[in-house]
Amino acid sequence: MKSLEEKILREGVVLDGDVLKVGSFLNQQIDTDFLFSMGEEIANYYKEDKITKVLTVEASGIAVAVAVAHCIGVPVVFAKKSMTINVHGELYSAKVHSYTHGNDNQFIVPKDYLSSSDKVLIVDDFLANGKAFEGLIDIAGQAGCEVVGCAVAIEKGYQGGGDKLRSKGIRVHSLAIIDKMSPAEIKFRK
Amino acid sequence: MKSLEEKILREGVVLDGDVLKVGSFLNQQIDTDFLFSMGEEIANYYKEDKITKVLTVEASGIAVAVAVAHCIGVPVVFAKKSMTINVHGELYSAKVHSYTHGNDNQFIVPKDYLSSSDKVLIVDDFLANGKAFEGLIDIAGQAGCEVVGCAVAIEKGYQGGGDKLRSKGIRVHSLAIIDKMSPAEIKFRK
Repeated sequence: MKSLEEKILREGVVLDGDVLKVGSFLNQQIDTDFLFSMGEEIANYYKEDKITKVLTVEASGIAVAVAVAHCIGVPVVFAKKSMTINVHGELYSAKVHSYTHGNDNQFIVPKDYLSSSDKVLIVDDFLANGKAFEGLIDIAGQAGCEVVGCAVAIEKGYQGGGDKLRSKGIRVHSLAIIDKMSPAEIKFRK
Repeated sequence: MKSLEEKILREGVVLDGDVLKVGSFLNQQIDTDFLFSMGEEIANYYKEDKITKVLTVEASGIAVAVAVAHCIGVPVVFAKKSMTINVHGELYSAKVHSYTHGNDNQFIVPKDYLSSSDKVLIVDDFLANGKAFEGLIDIAGQAGCEVVGCAVAIEKGYQGGGDKLRSKGIRVHSLAIIDKMSPAEIKFRK
């Protein structure tokens, strides 16, 4: 998506520790017009697939997932990373390491919200080593859902998570794939 | 908002510990069509106020805030509850106790995303004791923003947070205000 690549070049900042900061439009400030143009693009890509639910994980995945799901016309389900007092009943869960937070999280989804009749699109803002996607695919598998594919705003291609998913036969649609990144330069995959 | 009251009566579950579970449509499954009807309602209520930004806090506030902000046509800024490696620069912060999580959080917003020229609407999914709103108002104050008002999907009126904000002269628009709640009955404010 050319407009996303341009926005990353214009507003993105490469920080130490291999971090791309896109806080000015994707996280933690969200340009809602642009968000919905990304949502349209992803919804359009999967428009033949009869998706019934968009699955993501809190927190920064929620905005992208809401835009995509609204464009498709289906609900979002988001995994929580910790138990809260408003979660009860039987749960699906998966242990996932977070690169951004530097810790392990338990992804939690109540069984009420995913079933074997669901065709699920998994959505997040970033795809790097792919651990969050693997956790969500694990949860969708526990529920017996069909995983239609994965979609993400920004894939850090050089971290290999996206290509690992593709090598397993999973469709992955990334709006921008970064193949090389330094404070001096960001190179996108053609 | 009549349709929200009806949805709460139909799908809401009152759990022990004074918890209203609306996971089937607001958190952690989100009915995106309904979400945007709530967004429209809130955007319409504040349509004369020249809002420039919607401010919320991760995680479950993000969906409502995105819907409201998209309907108004402005960006969302969300406070994070912990530092991550993609947050840098100077920060506004406020310490806030979470009823749902039972712990203290530091709300964090980079100074880049709020300024004294902003007219801010503060949005969340729930308003109970009002601590999250107070924290966000504190942050908006640090930035010198004008707080136009607060908006929320569900206010637990009997917990007093909303009325405390109103008594300070802050406009609070709640789509449903619960004045009494037990597993047997939910009563809304007229």
